[in-house]
Amino acid sequence: MDVLVLKYEKLFNDYLDENLNFKDPKNLYGPIKYFMRIGGKRVRPVLLIMTCDILRKNINKALPAAICVEFLHNFTLVHDDIIDRSNLRRGKQTIHEKWDLNTAILSGDLMNILSYQFLQPYSDKLFKKLSILLNETSVKLCVGQQRDIDYSQIEKITKSDYIEMIRYKTSELIACSLKMGALIGGLSNSYSDLFYEYGINLGIAFQIQDDYLDIFGNKNIFGKKIGTDILENKKTLLYINTYESASVKEKKELLKLYSQKNSVDSKTKINRVKEIFIKNNVEKKVSNDITKYQNKCYKLIKKFPISDNEKKLYKKLTDKILFREI
Amino acid sequence: MDVLVLKYEKLFNDYLDENLNFKDPKNLYGPIKYFMRIGGKRVRPVLLIMTCDILRKNINKALPAAICVEFLHNFTLVHDDIIDRSNLRRGKQTIHEKWDLNTAILSGDLMNILSYQFLQPYSDKLFKKLSILLNETSVKLCVGQQRDIDYSQIEKITKSDYIEMIRYKTSELIACSLKMGALIGGLSNSYSDLFYEYGINLGIAFQIQDDYLDIFGNKNIFGKKIGTDILENKKTLLYINTYESASVKEKKELLKLYSQKNSVDSKTKINRVKEIFIKNNVEKKVSNDITKYQNKCYKLIKKFPISDNEKKLYKKLTDKILFREI
Repeated sequence: MDVLVLKYEKLFNDYLDENLNFKDPKNLYGPIKYFMRIGGKRVRPVLLIMTCDILRKNINKALPAAICVEFLHNFTLVHDDIIDRSNLRRGKQTIHEKWDLNTAILSGDLMNILSYQFLQPYSDKLFKKLSILLNETSVKLCVGQQRDIDYSQIEKITKSDYIEMIRYKTSELIACSLKMGALIGGLSNSYSDLFYEYGINLGIAFQIQDDYLDIFGNKNIFGKKIGTDILENKKTLLYINTYESASVKEKKELLKLYSQKNSVDSKTKINRVKEIFIKNNVEKKVSNDITKYQNKCYKLIKKFPISDNEKKLYKKLTDKILFREI
Repeated sequence: MDVLVLKYEKLFNDYLDENLNFKDPKNLYGPIKYFMRIGGKRVRPVLLIMTCDILRKNINKALPAAICVEFLHNFTLVHDDIIDRSNLRRGKQTIHEKWDLNTAILSGDLMNILSYQFLQPYSDKLFKKLSILLNETSVKLCVGQQRDIDYSQIEKITKSDYIEMIRYKTSELIACSLKMGALIGGLSNSYSDLFYEYGINLGIAFQIQDDYLDIFGNKNIFGKKIGTDILENKKTLLYINTYESASVKEKKELLKLYSQKNSVDSKTKINRVKEIFIKNNVEKKVSNDITKYQNKCYKLIKKFPISDNEKKLYKKLTDKILFREI
């Protein structure tokens, strides 16, 4: 299994490298090359390539779409980092930090445009199918990002608001990658939608885990600052779960901590919020939520039109992605 | 003639209005609706619709592509306004001024994505042709914007550097609009390229005129602050033409004025630069340059595969666009 994922990842990284041969203007393409090479887990390309490989035994045909989704993903990261004022991404400086705001805006724009351009090798019919899917997904990414911003300014959001927000912001592109792999692999729209649905649930579980790591993770492994969601007043599932069971006093304190950005210093704010989270058994609750979406993934995998051995590959990959082993 | 342009413009504005029926999240779509409704001359949609109408007598088929190019154009304006720190656009507040930076980044991103989505009504084959053209054009827009930024930090740029930069930043999208109109109008690639070439020359003449108005225009008519190019140290054709003929003393003064942003106050800087421009007959020189590209436009129009009366429409429209009568 590990060998297979590594093979897809290597294949992708080699192909990416060949396609980062942009030259002038270097103030525009330099930051793009830098950011695309920082690495990351390449989860979306791996899922896309694996799906196409299993369905059609044709890896090469998946590569242009794989680079398309990775460019789209990285474009959103570059602009989200500006919006969230993040200085670090995967342990390295973000573009607006290493260069400046204008460079981050413009290179992000170009990454978005290049993601479309990478689909050009496909035949007219497939090109249009993939483009329509890419458009829908990209719109949802923006909507998800806006909801994320909006929710940090609203006192109370429900669990379902939150799940829908992370579905748009994270799951849709994972689902799109899997569906692209299935479409290029020759499946009909309805069979491809099984892969899409699987991606939606995988993405939700993945994002809940990501929110957990943002607060309880190890900075060196996670590659980002710890506690940024708390500082940005983001009402993640950890907050929502805690708020549900918190005492009246804790509720008041949480609201106060999340409403007045400058009342306490960052360290105190993070530590106090963490204490309240822990006291309310947030780890257990979040773990239950992840398991729920993980089980939905398993159910969908069973319906995939592939062999039992191939299904096992998806099951193992699901677990590896959720437990950050790839 | 005016009646015809007004007809295309009205048709486009009505279609645009029907297509601005986005709802939630309103913090994302609100700014998009605001910006798309500020107006502007709709030069690109009008050229596209007119070309398709003349070639195919089918206006409606042109509308999705017309909205695509107008969205792309406005996306670049929203992000350029951040980069150039402009507070006004067409006499109204820019998005980052009326809302904030994050809103301007994200709504601009979505406008870019929507421009792609508007092409979806076309058949597989035409959709791909138009998408490829859109991709090429969008890449060039970003490259042009980067060159514009780069050139403001370089002491000396040549006339041909400058012309290439404005070709990328302005002409390519005008040329793309005309070529889209020709392709939708049923022309072959090579005939469509005549319209494309015409657009390139029209765009260059248009941008030189725009640079002239930035410094010598009337704020109320032009809808932007006067002299921003000088304040941003942009080496437009006015600067380059002046520099060529300026005395040693004037050259030194120009370099000094364009290199030290804060040495003199804005008003003094603008006035002094204008004086040097005027003393070096910049109006005459710029007018000659515009005429040169205008004549190239006329030559290309002659080759269009349309009737003489239809050719006259393009000739009149060229003049009207350049003299800002539409």
